[in-house]
Amino acid sequence: MQPSVAHIIIKKINAGEQTEVEDELAVEEPLEIQLGWQGPAGFTQKNISVTMRTPGNDAELAAGFLFTEGIVQHIDQIQHILPQENSVLVMLKPGVIPQLQQAERNFFTTSSCGVCGKTGIDAIKTVPVFTQQRENLTVPHGLFYGLQHTLQQKQVVFESTGGLHAAGLFTLQGECELLREDVGRHNAVDKVIGAALQNGQLPLHQFILLLSGRAGFELIQKAVMAGIQVIAAVGAPSSLAVQLAAEHNITLIGFLRKDRFNVYSGAERVSCE
Amino acid sequence: MQPSVAHIIIKKINAGEQTEVEDELAVEEPLEIQLGWQGPAGFTQKNISVTMRTPGNDAELAAGFLFTEGIVQHIDQIQHILPQENSVLVMLKPGVIPQLQQAERNFFTTSSCGVCGKTGIDAIKTVPVFTQQRENLTVPHGLFYGLQHTLQQKQVVFESTGGLHAAGLFTLQGECELLREDVGRHNAVDKVIGAALQNGQLPLHQFILLLSGRAGFELIQKAVMAGIQVIAAVGAPSSLAVQLAAEHNITLIGFLRKDRFNVYSGAERVSCE
Repeated sequence: MQPSVAHIIIKKINAGEQTEVEDELAVEEPLEIQLGWQGPAGFTQKNISVTMRTPGNDAELAAGFLFTEGIVQHIDQIQHILPQENSVLVMLKPGVIPQLQQAERNFFTTSSCGVCGKTGIDAIKTVPVFTQQRENLTVPHGLFYGLQHTLQQKQVVFESTGGLHAAGLFTLQGECELLREDVGRHNAVDKVIGAALQNGQLPLHQFILLLSGRAGFELIQKAVMAGIQVIAAVGAPSSLAVQLAAEHNITLIGFLRKDRFNVYSGAERVSCE
Repeated sequence: MQPSVAHIIIKKINAGEQTEVEDELAVEEPLEIQLGWQGPAGFTQKNISVTMRTPGNDAELAAGFLFTEGIVQHIDQIQHILPQENSVLVMLKPGVIPQLQQAERNFFTTSSCGVCGKTGIDAIKTVPVFTQQRENLTVPHGLFYGLQHTLQQKQVVFESTGGLHAAGLFTLQGECELLREDVGRHNAVDKVIGAALQNGQLPLHQFILLLSGRAGFELIQKAVMAGIQVIAAVGAPSSLAVQLAAEHNITLIGFLRKDRFNVYSGAERVSCE
């Protein structure tokens, strides 16, 4: 496996004083996600996406990406996953046809993709697999305060490079169940959801998703796909992130600090007693 | 024009105390970039890309994207740019054919895109327009210390939302020539380069590009296309960002603070006298 950290000699300049020191960088490399399946017209293999990612957990990343983009719906549809240096091949079981028309919404298209205006936002939305009624959760406010500290303590690669986003899955008792890091925040989320998918943990109704940075539309959409009801971000949410969270009845917290946070939607799940 | 900031009522929770306050969010909306041209087979119009962006400077964003992706090479090739609500149509002059094969490298492709391994990184690289010999620059170390402060002071939308990346173009005297904000860091850079392209300022050999966050491969590549020789980032660079900067003889600074910074490549341009 390729390393997540690269070593380099750099020049530090501090108030005009120069020193040469060894430093660590977060590794960024392209990963090509390839999908293979047996269709009515025989065997097909397609390159689905190229993402700039930090090596490590490539199989989880591929599984999570295919699931959160709506291309596959269940882990049972996957025969096996073969990670190579900068590519990963996901083979589907005989008879499983991937839902590629939905995946194309986000990407380069040669035909009209109708993403503009009101229909546009609808067109780029994925369709969640988990639509059943979800039980009501209440999370005591005090539980959120400790999450960022736990995340930071576990961010091994960030610690040495300062260059990575993290996504963490926490239990309702505040324990960190899964943590993944990546130069791309969407990749960190795909790795976490991919790992949970492989563990048979979906839907993630009983977990809190913690994001080390900002919360944009794309990340909320991935959480929706995984059935997550509570998202807490250390950074700011965007307008579309708040809108999507509200539509899906997700509790969205932003600017999480050790003694305070903002609630942008679903405040009824946060108890202050 | 759509606003860059949205207003919302949120719940602030501070040590268990709840208050309802009005808050501001950075707006995130999809933008579809459409390209129209007169080819040998008649008029063609194609959707080139959909990006999640903060509304504002959409024409610059489209021009910058088409240029930094290598699809158009000169501002003279563009007849006019028509921004609409969530789309922008870029019409090329008669006889100008866009270089779309290069653009496809980054996107969803149905054929093999060969991005894996060593050839892979080469395959996703764009080909710079400006290859002429560039004069040697020397920037006194003291000039860098003030850049972040200037950027922060000018980040109007970030100030109110905490939710935006910024890219700034600074003169060698430390003056801020252009500043653009966006929820996507690549969009902020495309807006700055697009504005400079429209102003006839390219190549940007005599400017410093300042990034409010981390420096990844994609941002360095966009800077290479615009002829930028000095890049300073407030956050960390990735391994591939440092590699690409070194290949193109670009000075890459990271972790820029008010009295110190790290130099990852091209240290000979930073003078400490």
